[in-house]
Amino acid sequence: MSAQRCWVDGRAGSGVPADDRGLAYGDGLFETVLVVEGRPVWWEAHLDRLEHGAAVLGIVAPARGLWWNDLLAARAELPGLARGRWVARLTLTRGSGPRGYALRAPMRPRRILALAPAPACADAARHGLRLRWCRTALAVQPALAGLKHLNRLEQVLARQEWNEPGIDEGLMCDTRGAVVSAISANLLCLTGRGWVTPPVTQAGVAGVCRRMLLENGWVGEGELRCDEVDGARALAVCNSVRGILPVRQLGTRGWGIEPELRALQRRLAAIEPAFHHPFLDDELA
Amino acid sequence: MSAQRCWVDGRAGSGVPADDRGLAYGDGLFETVLVVEGRPVWWEAHLDRLEHGAAVLGIVAPARGLWWNDLLAARAELPGLARGRWVARLTLTRGSGPRGYALRAPMRPRRILALAPAPACADAARHGLRLRWCRTALAVQPALAGLKHLNRLEQVLARQEWNEPGIDEGLMCDTRGAVVSAISANLLCLTGRGWVTPPVTQAGVAGVCRRMLLENGWVGEGELRCDEVDGARALAVCNSVRGILPVRQLGTRGWGIEPELRALQRRLAAIEPAFHHPFLDDELA
Repeated sequence: MSAQRCWVDGRAGSGVPADDRGLAYGDGLFETVLVVEGRPVWWEAHLDRLEHGAAVLGIVAPARGLWWNDLLAARAELPGLARGRWVARLTLTRGSGPRGYALRAPMRPRRILALAPAPACADAARHGLRLRWCRTALAVQPALAGLKHLNRLEQVLARQEWNEPGIDEGLMCDTRGAVVSAISANLLCLTGRGWVTPPVTQAGVAGVCRRMLLENGWVGEGELRCDEVDGARALAVCNSVRGILPVRQLGTRGWGIEPELRALQRRLAAIEPAFHHPFLDDELA
Repeated sequence: MSAQRCWVDGRAGSGVPADDRGLAYGDGLFETVLVVEGRPVWWEAHLDRLEHGAAVLGIVAPARGLWWNDLLAARAELPGLARGRWVARLTLTRGSGPRGYALRAPMRPRRILALAPAPACADAARHGLRLRWCRTALAVQPALAGLKHLNRLEQVLARQEWNEPGIDEGLMCDTRGAVVSAISANLLCLTGRGWVTPPVTQAGVAGVCRRMLLENGWVGEGELRCDEVDGARALAVCNSVRGILPVRQLGTRGWGIEPELRALQRRLAAIEPAFHHPFLDDELA
């Protein structure tokens, strides 16, 4: 049913005890890391975010070397991991505990590594995605906003709003009406202010690809209303598995691929070759 | 570490596959059912709520007989279940699935039954609990409010706000400032309007004990502000594991046990003997 292979605390194929608090309460965090030719992309940035989230939730983050050892163990058992593109999902839960929310004794956090082939992205990076607006709104919760935690029912509900295969992603607002992100990616919007991505202090996830674009000064943070997004000169979504993907349709409006969007993709490819595609060399911007 | 015994899809002691969506996204629901002398209390009402939640999330709820069979299997392996008080946690997840939020193929939901001794409640029912206000606010999310789903990080954070053993529970407001509930129980507040419990259409869980009190007309639904709660004639919390527990302290304010509170406890005991305590006969109200 599932193409995933799993390692729990470094041991292959094992299940997770039914009293794990990640299962009981979504009490944990995760990262989805692109692995290209055996190299995890933006590895330290992913662990930065995981450790920040763990600090907020009061979970003791494992030493970084343990995750690395898990990856090495996986590579030993899955030689194909050294070639091609994979997604490594790192899940950190608070571990097994008794019934109830209270933390009565120190808990031993649990690491889960799951590996699956990465989705193809070259075509989407070239030709773009088709999006729709979601009716499901993201709740405003400053205490959890930005974290990639395991409470993801809003995304699950939003993704159930359509089943047309022609629609690739959905855009979500928060319950105040501010635009936040796509379901599985951050949003980039070319406005009169340049490339803008919404803040993630009230809702949403602080994506690792988004962080790279912000840190390099290629994108700025700014509030966006739906009408600004609908009227944007160009739109794209980004995440750490697929890089920057243009939006070619949102609802009834279509876009061509603007030179500014190709320029942003080239900048990303220049700092991270995993997101270089041959068409970025071939085409004139 | 944990006193829980678990059955997964009716099989004892098994773990849960690491690709379960309950673990990946909190994609599921749970119920905590009091079991007294082998009898699950308010069994049908718990399954009503579970099935309603499953319909909202788009999970196919198992036939009720399957949960019953799980309980029988547990009783066969755990003879002590026929005596005393236990808590049966029923967890329903969407089951195992591939990476990503999309539901690409029908998934087989997974049942998890966990049994643990019930917490003592007679003393608390008699003498009351000490509460504090939580700083962590519940997000406003009408799409999920009322459901007992697996996305419980807000409760986890709220419960970490204190570790004094003298504080038993915390009261939570939503991000708009409306009072919602205790962390693990609904709130009952005796005001000029009689006994009032906040609505659960924006945040909070529609508790099964709360439902019984509302259906019998002993409690009404109404918005509550913090100052109304602080100034209430009497306060109590309720859930289906411990029944109605008086609040004897909230922050710096203390309360005695009002006759109206004992009267409410007696009414509950009259419809559900699991919540009868000898002191309810002995004392004059």
